[in-house]
Amino acid sequence: MFKIKVLRREDIENILNVKSVIQGVEEAYRFKARNEADVFPMIFHEFASGKGDMDIKAGHLKGANLYGFKQVSWFGENPEKGLPALLGSMMVFEGDTGRPLGLLDASYITSIRTGAAGAIGIKYLARKNSKNLLMIGTGNQAIFQLAASLAVLDEIETVAVYNPRSLEKAEKFVESIKDTLTNDFLAKFDHDSQAYDEIKKRYDVAFHAVDSIENAANNADIIITATPSKHPMIRKEWIREGTHISCIGSDMEGKQEIDEGIFGIARVFVDDIKQSIRVGETETAIKKEVIKREDIIGEIGNLLEGRISGRRTDEDVTIFDTTGLAIQDLITAKYALDLAEEKGYGSEVEI
Amino acid sequence: MFKIKVLRREDIENILNVKSVIQGVEEAYRFKARNEADVFPMIFHEFASGKGDMDIKAGHLKGANLYGFKQVSWFGENPEKGLPALLGSMMVFEGDTGRPLGLLDASYITSIRTGAAGAIGIKYLARKNSKNLLMIGTGNQAIFQLAASLAVLDEIETVAVYNPRSLEKAEKFVESIKDTLTNDFLAKFDHDSQAYDEIKKRYDVAFHAVDSIENAANNADIIITATPSKHPMIRKEWIREGTHISCIGSDMEGKQEIDEGIFGIARVFVDDIKQSIRVGETETAIKKEVIKREDIIGEIGNLLEGRISGRRTDEDVTIFDTTGLAIQDLITAKYALDLAEEKGYGSEVEI
Repeated sequence: MFKIKVLRREDIENILNVKSVIQGVEEAYRFKARNEADVFPMIFHEFASGKGDMDIKAGHLKGANLYGFKQVSWFGENPEKGLPALLGSMMVFEGDTGRPLGLLDASYITSIRTGAAGAIGIKYLARKNSKNLLMIGTGNQAIFQLAASLAVLDEIETVAVYNPRSLEKAEKFVESIKDTLTNDFLAKFDHDSQAYDEIKKRYDVAFHAVDSIENAANNADIIITATPSKHPMIRKEWIREGTHISCIGSDMEGKQEIDEGIFGIARVFVDDIKQSIRVGETETAIKKEVIKREDIIGEIGNLLEGRISGRRTDEDVTIFDTTGLAIQDLITAKYALDLAEEKGYGSEVEI
Repeated sequence: MFKIKVLRREDIENILNVKSVIQGVEEAYRFKARNEADVFPMIFHEFASGKGDMDIKAGHLKGANLYGFKQVSWFGENPEKGLPALLGSMMVFEGDTGRPLGLLDASYITSIRTGAAGAIGIKYLARKNSKNLLMIGTGNQAIFQLAASLAVLDEIETVAVYNPRSLEKAEKFVESIKDTLTNDFLAKFDHDSQAYDEIKKRYDVAFHAVDSIENAANNADIIITATPSKHPMIRKEWIREGTHISCIGSDMEGKQEIDEGIFGIARVFVDDIKQSIRVGETETAIKKEVIKREDIIGEIGNLLEGRISGRRTDEDVTIFDTTGLAIQDLITAKYALDLAEEKGYGSEVEI
């Protein structure tokens, strides 16, 4: 019999902050680069076309003595039943014994580790003196991307927010963003005044909604794309020298957010080469032969390990294509479990 | 937030009895035959060769509005650390919403649903007037096979028990078997005097250990094989007309318990055609071309649905090759959850 920790979404929200999740996800990427992590083949099942599906993503972090999986389901009719469309849970096990360690809601972990991924691309590939950030998409991910990315950027002055379907939605998002950043992200640092002050300063930038993506892209040092788009929204001609793009939205075959031509002028980094070619933003660039597999500079973990070089000049255009790996979830879950233990969050149950 | 039920092994042991699990597994087989069940591709990972591995088996029982998975790990060095080598847990979700229903220990469920599978082969394929049963193997599965099989058989008089490596082990197993059947299996029926009396009578047979498998096979109406063998233990010449064999042990490539030649003279039934050919007892018979895929009479679910015929004469030799399906676990888990709710077993936790 084992005692395991059970963490609800709200426990996890109370525990995790963007800085530590970024640190954890970097560690997971590094483990992967050092062959101390395995991502297992995904199980995907569609219950009924366009109505419901589920996947199970599992992996092993040898370096952290940890394995486990995340199960996420989507049922389009759930909201009519008073349930969220997207539901998910995770289990984490000790890597050398199989001992169950915890059961966790997966929704917040997925959101914040995805925010961390985008931010890591920016932290290591964007120009240090970047002033203008363009956020494309105002869905669930947008706030996590901004909360994490701004936390790693020192000199940002303006954030332009673009919603491909509605300026009004972008305006609405911008209206509440300062409050959301303060209440949901900055507040996590109130036990650490140095970090609090630093993040507070970094979140203190000018946000504005934009209706011309062309102008905004033209003016951006950093672009984050986080939409479910299946067609390129940003043209190659709009990208100026030195821009970094973190591509978040594409995680299934057929999704595309930026002109595949941009891959031809960019230094391209990915979280997992195979998966990015199969389901990431890189898919179309490879399929249309804009680049070949060998043209991908490499996986971000290898960059973090210093085995490949990132940006070389202020004129380089850089891309980070992240598709999402189970090992990001695992390391974040383990971190949440450890903190919950320390701070007395969550409940315990015997199994 | 959801309230889910958590069941430990001992909760599940207290709840499940062989009769109801047999009924559940029959239902799962029937769902499969009616295309109301899906078995998803398995995730398998070996941590270190011969030292540790894990698998995740998942499936969907549309007919029971249920999906879920079972995660089982094996770490050979666990006993030195005071932990069981084999550990497992399951999660069950509502099929049309993804709402989590329960988290369950998987060890007892796996054992009893595997016992039920062997028994179902016997119930529908063995001769009704079978008198002598031969049990090959005295490991964890043996008692579950006997507890379930004897519960569906009316006229059995003797059970011969054979351990391929040691007569002593078989003797030891036989010594305690009546107590085990009474305490661990019959006792579950003490709320239902009719079932109790029936099962009591059926468990009241003569058990004896045997050291000649040839003689025992020669004398058997029913044979159950439940060993991890990689070489055939039973020769074709030893099988007499009318014998039924339930093959339990083979569930991985390279495992084999009976002479593949027996497939050439038998009516062969399986739980899942693809899986049995890939990893079941059927694997070798197909690879060595004793039979072709078309020679398999069919899946047991189709037999239960009356779409194919089972035994036709008292002279037929029949084989049921079961490799184990996630849908057996799922239906058994759901049944345990329902009973736990009704009888107040297990704990509840919010996630």
